[in-house]
Amino acid sequence: MNMLFIIGLGPGNPDQLTPEAQTALAGVTDLVGYGPYVARVQAGPDVVRHGSDNRVELDRARHALEMACAGRRVAVVSGGDAGVFGMASAVFEAVKQGPPEWRALDIRVIPGVSAVLAAAARIGAPLGGDFCVMSLSDNLKPWPVVCERLRHAAQAGFVIALYNPRSHARPDQLGEAFDLLRTELPGDVPVAFARAIGRADERLLLTTLAQARGEDADMSTLVLIGTPLTHRIARPDGSAWLYTSRRVPA
Amino acid sequence: MNMLFIIGLGPGNPDQLTPEAQTALAGVTDLVGYGPYVARVQAGPDVVRHGSDNRVELDRARHALEMACAGRRVAVVSGGDAGVFGMASAVFEAVKQGPPEWRALDIRVIPGVSAVLAAAARIGAPLGGDFCVMSLSDNLKPWPVVCERLRHAAQAGFVIALYNPRSHARPDQLGEAFDLLRTELPGDVPVAFARAIGRADERLLLTTLAQARGEDADMSTLVLIGTPLTHRIARPDGSAWLYTSRRVPA
Repeated sequence: MNMLFIIGLGPGNPDQLTPEAQTALAGVTDLVGYGPYVARVQAGPDVVRHGSDNRVELDRARHALEMACAGRRVAVVSGGDAGVFGMASAVFEAVKQGPPEWRALDIRVIPGVSAVLAAAARIGAPLGGDFCVMSLSDNLKPWPVVCERLRHAAQAGFVIALYNPRSHARPDQLGEAFDLLRTELPGDVPVAFARAIGRADERLLLTTLAQARGEDADMSTLVLIGTPLTHRIARPDGSAWLYTSRRVPA
Repeated sequence: MNMLFIIGLGPGNPDQLTPEAQTALAGVTDLVGYGPYVARVQAGPDVVRHGSDNRVELDRARHALEMACAGRRVAVVSGGDAGVFGMASAVFEAVKQGPPEWRALDIRVIPGVSAVLAAAARIGAPLGGDFCVMSLSDNLKPWPVVCERLRHAAQAGFVIALYNPRSHARPDQLGEAFDLLRTELPGDVPVAFARAIGRADERLLLTTLAQARGEDADMSTLVLIGTPLTHRIARPDGSAWLYTSRRVPA
């Protein structure tokens, strides 16, 4: 049966790529995905790399499905986990809309360490309670929906992890999100800006909701907003850990 | 400097344990955690295994911190990712309450593939949109808080991933949760019961919110509740994939 792999490459550090993903990647003829992720994969000279821009997920997914149906061994790759704002949803959306033979493919999604898990681990245990994971981008959903979701998340007491917090085209939305959250949560709630965790250009900033500024994030940053049950532990060297209590008082 | 590792072992399949975790485990003298997870680690005969019951997280964390301060090389282990309803939060809570020397430890949290990511990958791409991850247990938080969070999550349009959906001591709460969600969401919203994904006794059931029953879950099940944007793709062999659309209409 023709196969298609959808593979999460992890945060960037090769030590965080699972053996399962590595084994799958070792057998492919074609790599499909956003250029920088395709470039990151260690593969032999015969493997064809189909890197593309990050706005063409559905086209890219269809191309991968066509090649898989033609008998190529294709891996669609994403950073982190492909199911979390990666390529997995686009591939299945293409399958749903596509010809019947795509449904007969053996499609295997190989999970990876997502950016939110890597960032949380670097910070301490900020996801210790219930949490939500959102994309702040309004490319695929209306901005009022984003705001409504932030409000529900804060009222629910979820720790909030934000993907795609800021881009050149959306410089102000993260600041607006902080303004909205400041109306729902105390100002001393911890906020973390975790940039490129696990890569050479990693940078971590811990602050509070009162102090948090949109400008502290870029496209490679994961923003974590705590709850009143998220605590800061100061360390002797001046650094700190954050953790969220598992216990919620009555 | 004395060190302490907190390590996520992944869902159970050794192929899903990262090289980073494997390297860290290779250097330890002591393993601390819930018995079945401690037993799962491949380690030499000199490694001391401190397996314990699953209700004593804080005691277990303190024991690990004490041993680390005494110069032992200790790993606290959890299934999946230690930051997601695993041991990481308990360790930092113990640090916060403990003696100053615990804050000077070099504590390294090694992320893992969490159960929710493994289950989602097995199902297709159910986490394609925004989502939340909750523990349904009321051992550490009041049941009304759980219900309020479910309501916010449904109203926000989050896919909902439920850890600890059911136990012998809490046989009826998952059914109550489904009843509550049926008042907020259409009955045809997809629901998945993903049991022990990645292990030999794996079992997957796809159904709808209207049909979902608490009895379909046990302690090893991860329950995923979709949204009106979660779609089912029927396959020629009778199985199906679920995915959640990345696009939210206005």
